Amino acid sequence: MATVHLWGASGYAAAEAIRLIDAHPLLELGVLESRSHAHAAVADHFPLLRKTRHRFSPSGAVLDAVSPGDVVIAAGAHGEAAPFVERALDAGARVVDLSADFRFSEEAVYGLTEWRRDAIARAALVANPGCYPTATLLGLLPLAQMARAPVQYIVDAKSGITGAGRNPSVGALFAEVSGDVRAYGLDGHRHEPEIVRYLNATGIGAPLVFTPHVVPIARGMLVDAYAIFDHDVEADEIVRAYATAYAQSPFVRVIDEGAPSVAAVVGTNDAEIRIDVRGTIVRVICALDNLGKGAAGQALQNINVMLGYPQEAGFDARAVIG
Amino acid sequence: MATVHLWGASGYAAAEAIRLIDAHPLLELGVLESRSHAHAAVADHFPLLRKTRHRFSPSGAVLDAVSPGDVVIAAGAHGEAAPFVERALDAGARVVDLSADFRFSEEAVYGLTEWRRDAIARAALVANPGCYPTATLLGLLPLAQMARAPVQYIVDAKSGITGAGRNPSVGALFAEVSGDVRAYGLDGHRHEPEIVRYLNATGIGAPLVFTPHVVPIARGMLVDAYAIFDHDVEADEIVRAYATAYAQSPFVRVIDEGAPSVAAVVGTNDAEIRIDVRGTIVRVICALDNLGKGAAGQALQNINVMLGYPQEAGFDARAVIG
Amino acid sequence: MATVHLWGASGYAAAEAIRLIDAHPLLELGVLESRSHAHAAVADHFPLLRKTRHRFSPSGAVLDAVSPGDVVIAAGAHGEAAPFVERALDAGARVVDLSADFRFSEEAVYGLTEWRRDAIARAALVANPGCYPTATLLGLLPLAQMARAPVQYIVDAKSGITGAGRNPSVGALFAEVSGDVRAYGLDGHRHEPEIVRYLNATGIGAPLVFTPHVVPIARGMLVDAYAIFDHDVEADEIVRAYATAYAQSPFVRVIDEGAPSVAAVVGTNDAEIRIDVRGTIVRVICALDNLGKGAAGQALQNINVMLGYPQEAGFDARAVIG
Amino acid sequence: MATVHLWGASGYAAAEAIRLIDAHPLLELGVLESRSHAHAAVADHFPLLRKTRHRFSPSGAVLDAVSPGDVVIAAGAHGEAAPFVERALDAGARVVDLSADFRFSEEAVYGLTEWRRDAIARAALVANPGCYPTATLLGLLPLAQMARAPVQYIVDAKSGITGAGRNPSVGALFAEVSGDVRAYGLDGHRHEPEIVRYLNATGIGAPLVFTPHVVPIARGMLVDAYAIFDHDVEADEIVRAYATAYAQSPFVRVIDEGAPSVAAVVGTNDAEIRIDVRGTIVRVICALDNLGKGAAGQALQNINVMLGYPQEAGFDARAVIG
Repeated sequence: MATVHLWGASGYAAAEAIRLIDAHPLLELGVLESRSHAHAAVADHFPLLRKTRHRFSPSGAVLDAVSPGDVVIAAGAHGEAAPFVERALDAGARVVDLSADFRFSEEAVYGLTEWRRDAIARAALVANPGCYPTATLLGLLPLAQMARAPVQYIVDAKSGITGAGRNPSVGALFAEVSGDVRAYGLDGHRHEPEIVRYLNATGIGAPLVFTPHVVPIARGMLVDAYAIFDHDVEADEIVRAYATAYAQSPFVRVIDEGAPSVAAVVGTNDAEIRIDVRGTIVRVICALDNLGKGAAGQALQNINVMLGYPQEAGFDARAVIG
Repeated sequence: MATVHLWGASGYAAAEAIRLIDAHPLLELGVLESRSHAHAAVADHFPLLRKTRHRFSPSGAVLDAVSPGDVVIAAGAHGEAAPFVERALDAGARVVDLSADFRFSEEAVYGLTEWRRDAIARAALVANPGCYPTATLLGLLPLAQMARAPVQYIVDAKSGITGAGRNPSVGALFAEVSGDVRAYGLDGHRHEPEIVRYLNATGIGAPLVFTPHVVPIARGMLVDAYAIFDHDVEADEIVRAYATAYAQSPFVRVIDEGAPSVAAVVGTNDAEIRIDVRGTIVRVICALDNLGKGAAGQALQNINVMLGYPQEAGFDARAVIG
Repeated sequence: MATVHLWGASGYAAAEAIRLIDAHPLLELGVLESRSHAHAAVADHFPLLRKTRHRFSPSGAVLDAVSPGDVVIAAGAHGEAAPFVERALDAGARVVDLSADFRFSEEAVYGLTEWRRDAIARAALVANPGCYPTATLLGLLPLAQMARAPVQYIVDAKSGITGAGRNPSVGALFAEVSGDVRAYGLDGHRHEPEIVRYLNATGIGAPLVFTPHVVPIARGMLVDAYAIFDHDVEADEIVRAYATAYAQSPFVRVIDEGAPSVAAVVGTNDAEIRIDVRGTIVRVICALDNLGKGAAGQALQNINVMLGYPQEAGFDARAVIG
Repeated sequence: MATVHLWGASGYAAAEAIRLIDAHPLLELGVLESRSHAHAAVADHFPLLRKTRHRFSPSGAVLDAVSPGDVVIAAGAHGEAAPFVERALDAGARVVDLSADFRFSEEAVYGLTEWRRDAIARAALVANPGCYPTATLLGLLPLAQMARAPVQYIVDAKSGITGAGRNPSVGALFAEVSGDVRAYGLDGHRHEPEIVRYLNATGIGAPLVFTPHVVPIARGMLVDAYAIFDHDVEADEIVRAYATAYAQSPFVRVIDEGAPSVAAVVGTNDAEIRIDVRGTIVRVICALDNLGKGAAGQALQNINVMLGYPQEAGFDARAVIG
């Protein structure tokens, strides 16, 4: 049994991590630190954690409690995570950071599990990918690594509103989100450079247009990625590329009938992918849960890898959706 | 053409008032004062007012602009409205206050239009009722005024989340409201004394249990009111009481088939009511739009009455729902 | 390991049962019979069962496969279940019937687990209660059994649309349900006699007014039940009655702070109850998942009891909500 | 005052047409023919038309009633409209057909108002465009008509579920749509050839990849269209092309700040468009109401043009959204 502490424990991804750790046979919850909710009962803040008896601890509690060998999930805000993470590492913890702070740092392994398993296994610090990058990279990396890679990418993404976090803002109110579908970040979105960086890590690089949208769902994400080649593409070759890439990946499901849907992945750590070839264009649709594979689920999957557990440990129970 | 100014113009009820005034043939928009949004374009804050060219004005703008004979809708926060309203009255305006500040004051006429039409016509200050009281009182007043009135009321109300206003809070986030139905205010709700006061104004008085709920809709409200008598009730007598009470009320629709629904009233100033008699109990179900008849719609209806216009002026267009 | 067969396996409650059985350590799925979906893959019909490899079997498959000692969940339509159930019993199976066919029959034990545990343990046939009766009876039975019981009940219920089943109808379309709240069944609802029968089973009997509503959620139910006494009620006595009634019931959670909410129970077998005393009226609010404790969850709980397993077997995993 | 009859009057687009005609100062409703709902009250089938006193007429009623000079909106099913339309034309009516039956026929004028105004003004038969083609063509035609046109189009569309019509199907149930986002029609969608036909009508022609999605909203549509050029594009030239194309079009709003949103157009006949240039790619986002500009709204706009009325007649009232 390894102990997992949470820092910044009052957001949506943290709640999902609490749920997953609580149900995990080989992990136990340590300290749940939350500056804003210190001493409050977790059950009072998340209806679906109503049975949980844990309480939030005040600032400093994780660093006080952490022992070498413990794991820490840093679920705090972008920009604030870095100094905390350094101190947790100094204390001997292994850290999975959900923020963007280390995603461009050589100090951390980028935690896209399916593509970095070996490095993650040895890592002291894992920079957990953003939800948009996870969906986009799972969908496009098999293409980006082909000998004759795409020359242009267009990524059209639809996200549930939990992606905006639990800090209240007018734009995330029910009365604003319900009944609406809207694009946003049209002049540049934080996740775009992260996608570009890791998409082109091993290839020559190709430009990308990224358009995020908010759709009226709480959880889940659907990303349509269009890869444009400068030559006609052979469907067989493409299909083989995905089969090879994800042969060992229990959470990536490549389907050739039907259509990926958020309903098929919400509450799980799964990604569902469908590929279609249309002349010089390959359309890749990827569905995942932004709080699951896009955040806390992937964090737990990474912790499983770091601790030498089976990747699927703790994910057995089939999830339910409301 | 009368001029209507808005004070506290950036909330949901204010937006609905702007929409209604803009479409009103006999009213024109004056100053839209908003401390928090001063100088911003209205179109940027309310998607459905995208065509509006108005801008929010800074603090003090309404009092600077108001002329005797103008109308002011005070749409600011409870507790802050009173001093503003007094100054607007001093400036010669007639005022409809959407806050609770004057609902218990003798200085104001309580603006439940169907029950106070004559007094409203002469009023300098109208205290517009809350949405819960509007639905409950329209439903129960015909009973409360019977010779042998109910001895107990139970009111079970379901409200859309715009009732919580546009100031962001965790409880009003899409991710919290979507998929949930919850009771709240179980230890006492602000609207309860308002209902009690006006329900029992002309009768002997009977205790009331009030249970408000949040349901995942943006707009609209359904109130189930149960009136308990100490004797068997005759259905005919009840039906006659409602027919008489609302004979002159174009916005109150009493139905005897089907069921009231929010979808039938949203975007309108209508209230839809059904009454059923079950032994000693009369069940009254009332649906209305909390931003329409429950707030801005009733305010406009009151302004029509104050100015001697037909009650229905400006409400002709059939509304649309998303 | 006991085998559980499903008859009428293509509805929402059946899908939830499949999910629960699949995750249950002591049960295994047998035949999933569906006349309308024979031979189809379960995964193609329920997105969240996408990983399931089971297929629907044609008519007659359960009776062909069943062995003495097996359990059968009959999830078919009201009116069609009875003849099937008789034959399954003849074949030596123990049956939990989700339809209304045996709820008034002496042949079956009424499967409200918390109130019939011993009889269920010995039963060959369990008539699983409806969702409305489950929520209402869990909420009211402790009162109905008091020495001085209520003289009148008013039950105001709010249900998610899965309660209407998966057979498509205009009234259950997204475009009709979304944005709406509506009462229905105002001239009498099928569940009302079921509630009356079991509410008054042990008491003197008191009249009941029942008002069901559809709210725009897929799953979940909130029932506000108002018990009217002919005397002032002592809060302490009431609290003790609930504490005693549910002392041994791990799925019933009586709270005295906060408010029951659908979000706190969806995806679980839990019922969350709050009681308030107001003079002669006791207000009981009960939230549960109509597909969980209101249908498939309670069926599995009953199977646990029938087989001598711990009541909570298979329910350990904390559920997730979208 | 011209009379407008509806044939196939019980679907969502027909209901929107009824609403619009009812509010139109220069049009009056004639016969509302519905085979499936003959003799029923319109008010009983559409909550928001509760005030309407019209009834549905049986088969044949429109042809019996129509006089030369009348207008008929054919809102029946694809494939069934053609024979009816021919007879209505024979009877001297002018017809706007909402089905796909004449969209590829030389007998009809394609009713994309902004691009065919003069021909529509003289037409006896207008083939009203589909909702996806309307959004896509409004967005892309200014590019398709440039001297150096795009060489490839990618269209990623998100639609509300009313696009699937009012005939009940499992896929359109609230419990299936709520909480989900899904692609569909991945192997070819009926609207794709319509888009291709009219997009390339005046240009050289370029291939198109079209991906439709269902999002959990009742009404509204957002289309992201990506036009790929074989050369770098000048933003100024693009902006001028749209300014010129829509200079006379009161319903097309080209914005250069913020993002198009469904909430800004639902209930209206507006289309909101934003264009961004990214190297060789132009991204065009277009939002409209699938029942408004995408169906009944555009039909009414076309009728205004056919009758020599101002395009905006009947659309003055600002709409409301739930």
